Amino acid sequence: MRRLPLTLLAAGLLLAGGIASAATTIPATAVKTAEQLRDQALHDGTAMAVVTSLTTEVGPRLAGSAADLRAREWALAKFRELGFDKVYSEPVTFPLWQRRSESGAIVAPFPQPLVLTALGYSPGTPAGGLSAQVVKFDSLEALKAADPSSVKGKIVYVDYQMHRQKDGHDYGMGSAVRVAGPPIAAAKGAAGYLLRSAGTDMHQRIAHTGVTGFRDPKARTIPAAALSNPDADQLDRVLAYGKPVTVRMDLDCGIVGEYTGANVIGEITGSKHPDQVVAIGGHLDSWDPGTGAIDDGAGIAITMAAAKLIHDLPQRPDRTIRVIAFANEEMGLWGSRAYAQKHASEVAKFQLGTDSDFGAGKIWRMSASVKPEARGAIEQIAGVLAPLGVAYDATRPGGGGSDLSQMHARGMAALSLTQDGTHYFDWHHTANDTLDKIDPADLAQNVAVYATWVYMAAQADGDFGSAPGAFAEDSTGE
Amino acid sequence: MRRLPLTLLAAGLLLAGGIASAATTIPATAVKTAEQLRDQALHDGTAMAVVTSLTTEVGPRLAGSAADLRAREWALAKFRELGFDKVYSEPVTFPLWQRRSESGAIVAPFPQPLVLTALGYSPGTPAGGLSAQVVKFDSLEALKAADPSSVKGKIVYVDYQMHRQKDGHDYGMGSAVRVAGPPIAAAKGAAGYLLRSAGTDMHQRIAHTGVTGFRDPKARTIPAAALSNPDADQLDRVLAYGKPVTVRMDLDCGIVGEYTGANVIGEITGSKHPDQVVAIGGHLDSWDPGTGAIDDGAGIAITMAAAKLIHDLPQRPDRTIRVIAFANEEMGLWGSRAYAQKHASEVAKFQLGTDSDFGAGKIWRMSASVKPEARGAIEQIAGVLAPLGVAYDATRPGGGGSDLSQMHARGMAALSLTQDGTHYFDWHHTANDTLDKIDPADLAQNVAVYATWVYMAAQADGDFGSAPGAFAEDSTGE
Repeated sequence: MRRLPLTLLAAGLLLAGGIASAATTIPATAVKTAEQLRDQALHDGTAMAVVTSLTTEVGPRLAGSAADLRAREWALAKFRELGFDKVYSEPVTFPLWQRRSESGAIVAPFPQPLVLTALGYSPGTPAGGLSAQVVKFDSLEALKAADPSSVKGKIVYVDYQMHRQKDGHDYGMGSAVRVAGPPIAAAKGAAGYLLRSAGTDMHQRIAHTGVTGFRDPKARTIPAAALSNPDADQLDRVLAYGKPVTVRMDLDCGIVGEYTGANVIGEITGSKHPDQVVAIGGHLDSWDPGTGAIDDGAGIAITMAAAKLIHDLPQRPDRTIRVIAFANEEMGLWGSRAYAQKHASEVAKFQLGTDSDFGAGKIWRMSASVKPEARGAIEQIAGVLAPLGVAYDATRPGGGGSDLSQMHARGMAALSLTQDGTHYFDWHHTANDTLDKIDPADLAQNVAVYATWVYMAAQADGDFGSAPGAFAEDSTGE
Repeated sequence: MRRLPLTLLAAGLLLAGGIASAATTIPATAVKTAEQLRDQALHDGTAMAVVTSLTTEVGPRLAGSAADLRAREWALAKFRELGFDKVYSEPVTFPLWQRRSESGAIVAPFPQPLVLTALGYSPGTPAGGLSAQVVKFDSLEALKAADPSSVKGKIVYVDYQMHRQKDGHDYGMGSAVRVAGPPIAAAKGAAGYLLRSAGTDMHQRIAHTGVTGFRDPKARTIPAAALSNPDADQLDRVLAYGKPVTVRMDLDCGIVGEYTGANVIGEITGSKHPDQVVAIGGHLDSWDPGTGAIDDGAGIAITMAAAKLIHDLPQRPDRTIRVIAFANEEMGLWGSRAYAQKHASEVAKFQLGTDSDFGAGKIWRMSASVKPEARGAIEQIAGVLAPLGVAYDATRPGGGGSDLSQMHARGMAALSLTQDGTHYFDWHHTANDTLDKIDPADLAQNVAVYATWVYMAAQADGDFGSAPGAFAEDSTGE
C-alpha cells in the first residue's frame, strides 16, 4: 500500500475530493468545549499520576520480560480504573531478546574498565569476552567506504557525536550509526562493533542502548555495544597515543526464541459514530536500564489522561477515542506493525491520529497530513492550540508519531505534534530515563494539546481524508 | 601529640614566641618573582597534561589494586620527567579491600533493579545476596535513637539528601551518614545498610562510594552500600505505598589481607636550607568507579605543576619544595598517617604546608595557622594572591588540607586554600569522576595560587611557627 503508483494515488485523491467536496468543519459548541478541556488539562494531575504509577509499580519493562507482562496487566487495570468504556488487547509476536550481563575494558596499552551497554539483537560474546584490536571510523560513511581487509577480525568503533537540538535531529545520524553500522561492520568481517552512544549527555558515564539493524536471520551478526560519551572520549585519547589498542567486550545477551505480547487498548465509545475512531497512544514497553518515564511512560500517560478528560464530559464524544498502548516499539515497531496489518482494511474509519513518543517536553509545533477540504478544520484546531505555544506549520506533513506512522502509511490522516526534545537524548535509552526527568507542567501542556485536538476531531462535521493509500507521498514515518 | 594539654601548649607557644621574636617577612625580590610565577602559571599547561596522563594511562587506581602499583610507577616517572631533583617513595601498609561485583534490587512489592555501590570495608553478602525488609530513617540522629528491636534483621536505609554549596559543607553530614551509620546499624543488629548517596547529582543513576567506619576488627560489620539519588527517590516512592518493602543487596567484596603501597615523593632541593621544606601534594589513589580526575588527579597535577614552575626558575629556591603523592587517602588517610608518624620528629623543619584535595574548582579563600609573627608574611602572600580572586580570611585557622592535616596536627604551620566545590559532590567517588569535569583555566588558577605561596614561603626570612605540638587548638583536620 505504501508504494502505490502516483497516478493511482492522484486519481484516488481526486475521487475522494469528488465525494467529500464539502469542507470539514468543527462546530462552534465543540470549539468552546475544547477550549474548556484545554484549560482544565493544564491543572489536571492525571498524567503525572499515571506515569508515576507505571514507572514505580512496574519500572523497566523490556519487551518479552516478566515486567512486560506486568505492564500489560497494569495497563488493563489502569484503563478500567480511569473508566474507559472498552478495554482489550491484541496479540503481538516478536523475537525474544535478553540482556543478562555486559562489561567492557581497554586491555592494552592502558588497562581499565569501559562503561558500555549491549544493543538490541546483539549476539553475546564467547564466555570470557571478545578481545580484539580497535579500528576507529569518524562516520558511518567512512565505515561504508572501508576496505574489508582493514576491519576483518577487529572491533569497529564509530565515533559520531550527537549534539542537543530542540527537534533532536542529530538522532537521524546517531540512530543510523547504531542501526545500520553493525550489519555493515559484520558484512565486512569485523569481530565486534562499538559506537559512541547516540546521546547528548556529554559528561555522564551512562551508555545509551537501542536496537541494531540485525533483522536478516541469515546475515552474519557480531556483538555490538555503545560506549558512554566520557568512555568514548577516553578511548579516543588512548587511540591518540598511536599504539595498537585492544578492547574486550563481554556481553551475555541474545535472541532466545519468540514471545507473544500484546497491544493494550482502551476506548471511550463514540455516541454518534462509534465505529469511527480518533487514534492516539504511546508504547508500553521500555528499554531495561531505566524505568521508561520519558520513553514512553509519558506518551502512555498523556494520551490516557487526555481521553479521560473527554470521558469525564457530560456527554460521550461523537466518535470513539482509542488509546493504544503499543507492544515492543523499541526493537522495531513490532506492536504497531502488527496493529497496522490487522486493521489495514479499516483505515478509512480512522478519523485522525498520532501517538506521543518523544518524552515530556512541551509541544511547540503542529503539522498535518489531511485532505485539502480538512485544512480549515486543522486551522480551527491550531487556533485553540495557539495559546499553549503550539505553532501550526502548514508546509510540513503530519507523520502520525512513531507507532501510528504505520497506520498513516496505510492511509490514515495524521498529525505531527513536535515536542521540545532539547534534553530528550540526554536520557533516552539509558538508566537515567526516570520519573525525575518529567516536569509536571510540561506534561500537562501535552495533555492539553491532546485533549483539545482529539475532542475537536471527534466532533468534526466531516472527515480528514483517511482512505487506503492516501498520503503515500508525504508519509515520512518520522 | 594531638592531645597535648593546653597549659603545656600555651607554654610552648610562649617559648616559641620568645625565641623568634622578629617578624617573618618575604623579601621584595621574592614577591616580584612570585608575581611572575603567578602570571606565568595561568598560561601553563603542565597541570592539565599531568592529570590527562594519569587518568588516561592509569585510570582508576583503588588502593592496593594492580593499577595502584602502576600509579606509583607513573608518579616516579612523572616526577623524574618533570626534572625534580630527588624522587623516592616511603612504604605504607594498610588492609586490602577489594570490590568484585555489586548489584541490588527491590524484591517486593514492585520488583526492579536498583543502582547501588558497595562502600569501602563493607563485607560481602552471602552468595545470592541478602534479602531483607527495609526500615527507613530520615537522619543519622534518628538511627542513633532507634530501638534495636526496630532494626534487628532488617536493612537500615538512611535518607539524608546533600545539596550543592560552594564550600560543600553538607558533606559533613553526608559523610557521617556513610562513615558512622554502618557501625551504628551493625551494633543494633541490622542485617545490612543503605544510604542515599552522599552526592549532589540529583538526577544521575550513579552511586557514590566511599569508606565506612568499620575500623574495629572486633566489632560486627554488615554489608553496606549507597543508592544513587534517583534510586533513593524510587525507594522512597515504593515505601510510601505503606507495604513492607524487601530489598536484595548482592555484594561480592571485602578485606582480603594486608598490602604495602607507598607515598611517592618528589623534591626541588633548596639551595640555602635544603633540610627545611615547604610541603604540598595530593593523593595518588582513587576510588575505582571513576578515573580519579577531580579526586585527586587534580591535586597531584596542581602541586607537581606548581613545583615544576619553581624548578624552572634560574635559581633553586632557598628551601626545599616537597610534593607528596600520598597513598590510600580514600580508605582512611593511611598514607598521610604513616607519613606523619615517620616524620613526627622533624615537624619543625616543615616551613608551611597544605595539600590539594577538593577537585579542580578555583581557589576563593585562604586562611592560615601560623605563629603571630608570621601573620605579616601571610598578608604578603594574600596580597599577591588577591588578583586571582583569593580572599584572605584572618579569622579562620588553616587546616593543611586532607593528608597534610596529619602533619599540621603534629605542629606544622598550615594553610587552608578553599576551592569552589559547588559541583564537586556531583562527581565525587563516582564513575563520573573523569577528565572532562576539569576546566583547564580553573586548574591553572590553582597552580598559580600554589606556585605563588610555595615560592614565597620558601624564600621567607623567618619561619611560620612549626613546632612539636603547635596549633593543637585550631587543627581541624578539615
